[in-house]
Amino acid sequence: MLVLGSHHQLSRIMRPDDANIVGNVHGGTILKMIEEAGGIISTRHCNTQSGDRCVAALARVERTDFLHPMFIGEVAHVSAEITYTSKHSVEVQVIVLAENILTGAKKVTNKATLWYVPFSLQNVDKIIEVPVIEYSSVEQEEEGKKRYDAQKMERLETKERNGEIINPVVSPEAYTVGFSQSSLIHLVGPSDCTLHGFVHGGVTMKLMDEVAGIVAARHCKTNIVTASVDAINFHRKIKKGCVVSVSGRMTFTSNKSMEIEVFVDADPLVEAARGKYRAVTAFFTYISLDKEGKPLSVPPLKLENEEEKKRFEEGKVRYLQNKAKRQAEKERQQ
Amino acid sequence: MLVLGSHHQLSRIMRPDDANIVGNVHGGTILKMIEEAGGIISTRHCNTQSGDRCVAALARVERTDFLHPMFIGEVAHVSAEITYTSKHSVEVQVIVLAENILTGAKKVTNKATLWYVPFSLQNVDKIIEVPVIEYSSVEQEEEGKKRYDAQKMERLETKERNGEIINPVVSPEAYTVGFSQSSLIHLVGPSDCTLHGFVHGGVTMKLMDEVAGIVAARHCKTNIVTASVDAINFHRKIKKGCVVSVSGRMTFTSNKSMEIEVFVDADPLVEAARGKYRAVTAFFTYISLDKEGKPLSVPPLKLENEEEKKRFEEGKVRYLQNKAKRQAEKERQQ
Amino acid sequence: MLVLGSHHQLSRIMRPDDANIVGNVHGGTILKMIEEAGGIISTRHCNTQSGDRCVAALARVERTDFLHPMFIGEVAHVSAEITYTSKHSVEVQVIVLAENILTGAKKVTNKATLWYVPFSLQNVDKIIEVPVIEYSSVEQEEEGKKRYDAQKMERLETKERNGEIINPVVSPEAYTVGFSQSSLIHLVGPSDCTLHGFVHGGVTMKLMDEVAGIVAARHCKTNIVTASVDAINFHRKIKKGCVVSVSGRMTFTSNKSMEIEVFVDADPLVEAARGKYRAVTAFFTYISLDKEGKPLSVPPLKLENEEEKKRFEEGKVRYLQNKAKRQAEKERQQ
Repeated sequence: MLVLGSHHQLSRIMRPDDANIVGNVHGGTILKMIEEAGGIISTRHCNTQSGDRCVAALARVERTDFLHPMFIGEVAHVSAEITYTSKHSVEVQVIVLAENILTGAKKVTNKATLWYVPFSLQNVDKIIEVPVIEYSSVEQEEEGKKRYDAQKMERLETKERNGEIINPVVSPEAYTVGFSQSSLIHLVGPSDCTLHGFVHGGVTMKLMDEVAGIVAARHCKTNIVTASVDAINFHRKIKKGCVVSVSGRMTFTSNKSMEIEVFVDADPLVEAARGKYRAVTAFFTYISLDKEGKPLSVPPLKLENEEEKKRFEEGKVRYLQNKAKRQAEKERQQ
Repeated sequence: MLVLGSHHQLSRIMRPDDANIVGNVHGGTILKMIEEAGGIISTRHCNTQSGDRCVAALARVERTDFLHPMFIGEVAHVSAEITYTSKHSVEVQVIVLAENILTGAKKVTNKATLWYVPFSLQNVDKIIEVPVIEYSSVEQEEEGKKRYDAQKMERLETKERNGEIINPVVSPEAYTVGFSQSSLIHLVGPSDCTLHGFVHGGVTMKLMDEVAGIVAARHCKTNIVTASVDAINFHRKIKKGCVVSVSGRMTFTSNKSMEIEVFVDADPLVEAARGKYRAVTAFFTYISLDKEGKPLSVPPLKLENEEEKKRFEEGKVRYLQNKAKRQAEKERQQ
Repeated sequence: MLVLGSHHQLSRIMRPDDANIVGNVHGGTILKMIEEAGGIISTRHCNTQSGDRCVAALARVERTDFLHPMFIGEVAHVSAEITYTSKHSVEVQVIVLAENILTGAKKVTNKATLWYVPFSLQNVDKIIEVPVIEYSSVEQEEEGKKRYDAQKMERLETKERNGEIINPVVSPEAYTVGFSQSSLIHLVGPSDCTLHGFVHGGVTMKLMDEVAGIVAARHCKTNIVTASVDAINFHRKIKKGCVVSVSGRMTFTSNKSMEIEVFVDADPLVEAARGKYRAVTAFFTYISLDKEGKPLSVPPLKLENEEEKKRFEEGKVRYLQNKAKRQAEKERQQ
């Protein structure tokens, strides 16, 4: 059965407010556009059945690399396609292209994979069944099933890291974790939310990138850009009217990159019953650039206790795994 | 000669801030999206030649009807296509579609025609030659030439209406012109501007629709929506850092509609030499809706002097001409 | 010498993002509009002389009461007038009116007095001489001189409170200072800044109100609104690209109000030489409202140490002084 509208394109010109003062578009702006395209295509698809109307909510984003910088004045093209459906979830693959309309140059800046789950508009705790898509081959479906199983496994293994909190440090030394750690709070407004009244996943990711970017800039005092984002699981929804606290701390530095761990906590101010809860956690990787856009060395992170050393070692494992994966990908493409 | 990329699509989900409190998306939001798509496609096209890089600036929008309302949560699809080029100008035709991703319903809400002129990035007073497009037939080219000549004639005939100013009225009577007239000012910020540092035509149109909407709501105290916009000529550019004053007054009422004249003046605060100047003028038509979205009668405008009577009669002529034109169009389609 | 254009009006419709979830427009949104109007009128005035072009920067806002709530869908009218000029500063008086365009009801919601200082665009450290305005009477000029001297005295007396920092508290008890204290960080973007590349005073006040509102809501878990803002002095400018940290803590509670102290620190990320510095401090007062908009009792603040007790007593003095001042004003008007 062919489902129409399972492809979607979104495009927009990049404005000064989308970028840092050097003109590099924020990674968070791009993540927000990616999620908007994914949300539209999966909500549209899940409403092709009869029964309850529904809105697709972001459940997970796979690891994403930022392949090239994007600049103010360029047009971002975001193409989304549904590539797999299970009973209750939709896989969307997204490609982002930056077009310089003055020179005609086009570059792929991102490839991302997102997983959505449709919730009923009538009863927001009810998950709707996803209409099946038609695959062009049996192999294509089997590949999708493998990706689905792999991400499900990873989601189960991921801890919410509820215990982890970022403790403030009084007069920290330069290059320590306490020196660059940062947090922001944001009062969720109407334009941040879906028709359900829950925060768009893309809005949350934009806030996370903002905090992570400040941590990175505080550490190395240069122009920094998002290099990649590790898989993000959206454990719990965040409702309109909540105060969102987003905190970030540096966990690892390599010669040319910094890894920052970000926690998102939601505080439903007015509902006394329910307290503050952890909604999302993620790792962002940043690089530091000079005036010509060339990567700079990153000052090494000064570790002050056993916990910081443990987190650094875990970060190193992720760093080496990703490096090996990128290398393998490169060789496969040649 | 085939010109690649002479077609462009832009889409975006409608948020609470894009709409009034009843949920109807503002006409100004739609005009801004239309102009963004037109600006992208014509800037891209005009940079397919060698020589100076350039940015296409909006010179004129043809009369546009708002055929159906659009709502919060719907996805707006804006498709733009280059349909004619003269030596120094580009005609872009745009179609706007509102998609309800919950029901799958799609409706064409607008069709618009815009004219752009490319200015050099190196020297903003220099107009660039427009690359020729390939037409599918001789007739198609001739039709375009006719549209080009017609709009050129109209542009020449249009006065800037520099003399016209809206004088404030102390304690006006209900339903008079003075009772509903309104004005707003806006300090032009970086995200309002093109790479040249001049205000996007779409930003100006959004402000014009905002003022016209306030005038209409003040007059009839109900939910009002934009029904149509008369042809708008952009006489003069508005620079970053200017204060823009946008003023509107009611000129005509029929049984079910209101016509509002809008003036845009730019004031380059910091440049002492150049004073305030008139940049744009236009007529907006609004209708009044009840809670079910059905058109309501509009209270007749109370005229208090000869000038107001003259403007009312001129408005009536425009109203009857447009009515006749719509009628002719309808008959042609049957 | 009569200076034309020494009066200015700004108006804008209130959108969902301008308000909290109950529909009350944020005090910070109103402060931002007030400052925009003041900045425009004083920049325009200071450029009526020959010589360097300049931009007027906010130096001080006098104590302001929020007399009535404003709601989404209402039109805010902000009228600004220059009422006094000294050699290097401009006094602007502003009145804010909320108009319900559906019922025609209008209410004065704020009266504010702001002081601006013009800085050269060529050399941002150079203060420009302010053109003299013409007064309608000698008394009017003398009254202005008195206000000028009084604010100058107060500004000299105000400490920057550089030493004061808000220390984080681990697992605080309900209703203590540590329980509600909050802080946010904001990366200064292009739209936050004047032509000089410094943050608009109104943008800073909006962030301050945001933090203060979160502190108030965390304390009493109800709908809260800004009741008044004490005089704010802008000690030091904040440059584009800085990270701004805004922190707030509760200092005093009366039966029906809460006072929150807010600190603004600027951190010029990339300029290694200059460290973080205190840019602004202020006191905000909030009240708590029930669903019908009637004031609720506020839970008393639990004080845990001598410093908190001292700040509470100081807050009480400010509270009683303002109460007495309001009472005297009331009697004078009768």
